[in-house]
Amino acid sequence: MQDAIAISAKIPTINAAFDRIRNRHDPIDPRDNLNHAANYLYMLTGKIAEPVKVDALNTYLILLADHGMNSSTFTARIVASTWSDAYSAVVAAICALKGPLHGGAPGPVLKMLQDIGKPDRAEEWIRNELKSDRRLMGFGHRVYRTTDPRAQILKQIAEKSADKDLVELAKKAEEAGVRVLQEYRPQRKLYANVEFYSAVVMHSVGLPPDLFTATFAASRSVGWTANILEQATNNRLIRPQTEYTGPMDRKVVPINAR
Amino acid sequence: MQDAIAISAKIPTINAAFDRIRNRHDPIDPRDNLNHAANYLYMLTGKIAEPVKVDALNTYLILLADHGMNSSTFTARIVASTWSDAYSAVVAAICALKGPLHGGAPGPVLKMLQDIGKPDRAEEWIRNELKSDRRLMGFGHRVYRTTDPRAQILKQIAEKSADKDLVELAKKAEEAGVRVLQEYRPQRKLYANVEFYSAVVMHSVGLPPDLFTATFAASRSVGWTANILEQATNNRLIRPQTEYTGPMDRKVVPINAR
Repeated sequence: MQDAIAISAKIPTINAAFDRIRNRHDPIDPRDNLNHAANYLYMLTGKIAEPVKVDALNTYLILLADHGMNSSTFTARIVASTWSDAYSAVVAAICALKGPLHGGAPGPVLKMLQDIGKPDRAEEWIRNELKSDRRLMGFGHRVYRTTDPRAQILKQIAEKSADKDLVELAKKAEEAGVRVLQEYRPQRKLYANVEFYSAVVMHSVGLPPDLFTATFAASRSVGWTANILEQATNNRLIRPQTEYTGPMDRKVVPINAR
Repeated sequence: MQDAIAISAKIPTINAAFDRIRNRHDPIDPRDNLNHAANYLYMLTGKIAEPVKVDALNTYLILLADHGMNSSTFTARIVASTWSDAYSAVVAAICALKGPLHGGAPGPVLKMLQDIGKPDRAEEWIRNELKSDRRLMGFGHRVYRTTDPRAQILKQIAEKSADKDLVELAKKAEEAGVRVLQEYRPQRKLYANVEFYSAVVMHSVGLPPDLFTATFAASRSVGWTANILEQATNNRLIRPQTEYTGPMDRKVVPINAR
């Protein structure tokens, strides 16, 4: 439990110190009279953020804290099941989270919105991506076959905290994305996922795109460590068996005879 | 494929450089005229190892390179399935490997043998562990219900490369462990696993106990990266669903009312 609290407490401090140092500024200590979200923004900038920004980040951090047996949480539980330590389990979870099919999407989503530039260019831009067989980031989810309910909450938050033009652009891109995906992948039901409006919210509170996934990790560390503690209470090594279905009786040819 | 080769090539170099630097020696470059196992020992000591030691380590590295869907390999595949990079997948796998229920056992096994000290003290020592409800390291495996076939090969290697007294001690400890476990856990079939004689072989080639797991990682990196490549050829995000079986309709009590 002490490790769990320490990990969740420290990730924003680590993210902020990294951002300060790479910009040749000194790291800033957290303040006892600010909440977790407000301190994160304070440690990044040295300024007390406006309440609407703090509320936006606070809602984001709570909303993303846990979400079933997603890939990074499952990774954390497997690592914990070997009796490895909580820090190792969280490091492994971060390795999974950074993948573009998991928590690595918000950065590319913001880049997409910036590339589109204007609402009336969204549909053409998206058609061009799908024609070129590229994957549209921020749409679709393994579990949800409808709009991700978290995306709807983040959209409301974005409306309060983000620049009006960016919100307008994001909404048009979302509409165009859903419409064009319906046309290209009629057998699937693809809607905006949580990464889509996460990108807008994180941009609105002043986070640089390459801290989006690190900020997701700050939030999800709460869920990871809760799962690690749950795994530890009734542990069994997670180690599936697999069935080999390839060719049998293959011969080993020595390297110099290949 | 380039990442896979680079990772497997570099782990022994990293391990050796770490060991050199912590002992206040300069790291040693690998030599082009030595094989992978010989270079590892050379980079650790600066001396060309005897052929029997090189053969022992070489057999160990080949034997442990892959082994079905063990916890660390499964971790690597989950991370790869998010489109994260091969380095992240291997870092996550190492986080799982270090757990004492997975690749973290050989260090404790050597410590057990050193604590036992003499062959005729093995049974008493082991009985005392089991009476005190401690887990005996180096025995039992999730999949095998008989002696791990890899343990038998490593036992033969140990007989060639290790000190006679240590081999004698290990054999007596193995016999005593199997016998006493049969008595304490009659419903389970517990035999020496691959970690048991791994400890003896790694000690015999001069590796310090805290490099045992790092050396296991040098070997298993070949299997991890092969699995990462296989995952990438026909990828689907690995993300299980879970069923909640706890109490329902619980109320959230505000913190200040708890």
